[in-house]
Amino acid sequence: MSVIRRVGVVGGTHGNEFTGAYLARRWAVDGSDVQRRGFETKVCFGNPRAFGEARRYIDRDLNRSFGPHAPNDELYEGRRARELTAELLTGVDASELALFDLHTTTSNMRATLIFVELGPFNAALAAWLQAQLSDVRTYLWAESDAKPTFLNALSTHGCSVEVGPVPNGVLRADALQLTEQVMLRALDFVSAWNDGDRFDDLELEYFSLVRHVDYPRSADGQPAAVVHPQLQDRDFAPLERGAPLFLGFDGSTVRYELEETLYPVFVNEAAYYEKGIAFSLTRRQSMKLADLPDPRR
Amino acid sequence: MSVIRRVGVVGGTHGNEFTGAYLARRWAVDGSDVQRRGFETKVCFGNPRAFGEARRYIDRDLNRSFGPHAPNDELYEGRRARELTAELLTGVDASELALFDLHTTTSNMRATLIFVELGPFNAALAAWLQAQLSDVRTYLWAESDAKPTFLNALSTHGCSVEVGPVPNGVLRADALQLTEQVMLRALDFVSAWNDGDRFDDLELEYFSLVRHVDYPRSADGQPAAVVHPQLQDRDFAPLERGAPLFLGFDGSTVRYELEETLYPVFVNEAAYYEKGIAFSLTRRQSMKLADLPDPRR
Repeated sequence: MSVIRRVGVVGGTHGNEFTGAYLARRWAVDGSDVQRRGFETKVCFGNPRAFGEARRYIDRDLNRSFGPHAPNDELYEGRRARELTAELLTGVDASELALFDLHTTTSNMRATLIFVELGPFNAALAAWLQAQLSDVRTYLWAESDAKPTFLNALSTHGCSVEVGPVPNGVLRADALQLTEQVMLRALDFVSAWNDGDRFDDLELEYFSLVRHVDYPRSADGQPAAVVHPQLQDRDFAPLERGAPLFLGFDGSTVRYELEETLYPVFVNEAAYYEKGIAFSLTRRQSMKLADLPDPRR
Repeated sequence: MSVIRRVGVVGGTHGNEFTGAYLARRWAVDGSDVQRRGFETKVCFGNPRAFGEARRYIDRDLNRSFGPHAPNDELYEGRRARELTAELLTGVDASELALFDLHTTTSNMRATLIFVELGPFNAALAAWLQAQLSDVRTYLWAESDAKPTFLNALSTHGCSVEVGPVPNGVLRADALQLTEQVMLRALDFVSAWNDGDRFDDLELEYFSLVRHVDYPRSADGQPAAVVHPQLQDRDFAPLERGAPLFLGFDGSTVRYELEETLYPVFVNEAAYYEKGIAFSLTRRQSMKLADLPDPRR
């Protein structure tokens, strides 16, 4: 029997993503909206120093600092990751913890749930939320060659919630309302899961990472092109062979050359210039919840 | 006779506003697009250190560091302002210099020309550009109680070009193309001005600052509300009495209470949280170019 005893809700993991930061601050003062019968909701503020400076991070990306594969160092985010890990995991087993990490993106991704794996709980959560909220998409970001160091690596249950487009350092009412709506419904889902509700009639549509695509770059390492106007803001729209991807500063166009139709996500996300990601290509897939084992039985 | 002998084009004055930074870098390498007969075009990169860190500034806002009223100190931006001043003014008189400072904003301002004064050259420039490009607006940002320390305080000719909405730290093709278009046409205007062209048949519509409006704030100084969804993205749209301005985190709505119809600009600009500006109220005005003196006669 796999029951969730604690839900961790983390906002402000990136200090310039205000939406989750403001929600976490509000819920830390008054948690009545996020408490549910049957489990504890623990609200954490991810990176207060970075939030104070309206920067993504101080020394290193906090959301690349968790779990056994992260560097165990004295950088600010290294210490903060250990503090948060203790706060979230003390008193419960990782298998009893579900984690929601609230983010925003400059990409037009509406509300995208990002998972590192799609086990029975996560798949049911995603399918259930998608059935309730038309703005929700699911992205499976599983890197075959890297060990995840996301906050969500602390537990196999839960996801990042990415809402966009929102500029960094800006609080927008629409993003705030959408994020709040997704988070409150996610808590309702945990209640339903704990109550033994069945999700066998649901089917999950999701987008799984195929590979990242970097900007064309010049000899000095700087981008030599911009995301093409016909790709900008078109996250989750199908890419067919010949579709324009980049507009070079020399006027040239780089086009999509694959036979397979794939779907771009994180198109022109501000924070990914330094990570070498202009967008990521994903494959549209689906699974029937009835085909998954139910760990509660 | 007032002729422009040098045009300064400055990009990257704010290190996280990539549009002007990339244009300045491109034009510094190949200036063929920005050179015109009859005057020199000098392309400057405003704040290279802040650009390297994708931050607005290092020690102090560079665009509050110019002219006789700025602090004369050893902060990075203080030094950089003196270097740029020397670069732009050596060999010409301030009256022979026109300055264009390329910015982006997270507000939905399309291409807004920002002036600290609307003398004959500036008014003709704005009216001429508005007649040519439908996306152009003119904002007169004259503070009665403060001495301007903008880069544009170095010369009475020219303006800031603010293009948005663009998130900080992001290069968007649409903003790049619009900024380039405005800048190249502005250089065409300078040629026409130097050639003695008359602009007497033009009328300029512009928006002049009435006052800034801060966020409602809680006791700890943090915003207690977000820009209302019905105001978000509605820069330059008329505000009538009763229109919602802010949505409080407690669910309350703050409304517009003035009898006079005014027009908001810089609605929810990321950089103005720290300056205490949620938006600025402006009055819509107009002037006939024929009513202004022509300093060339």
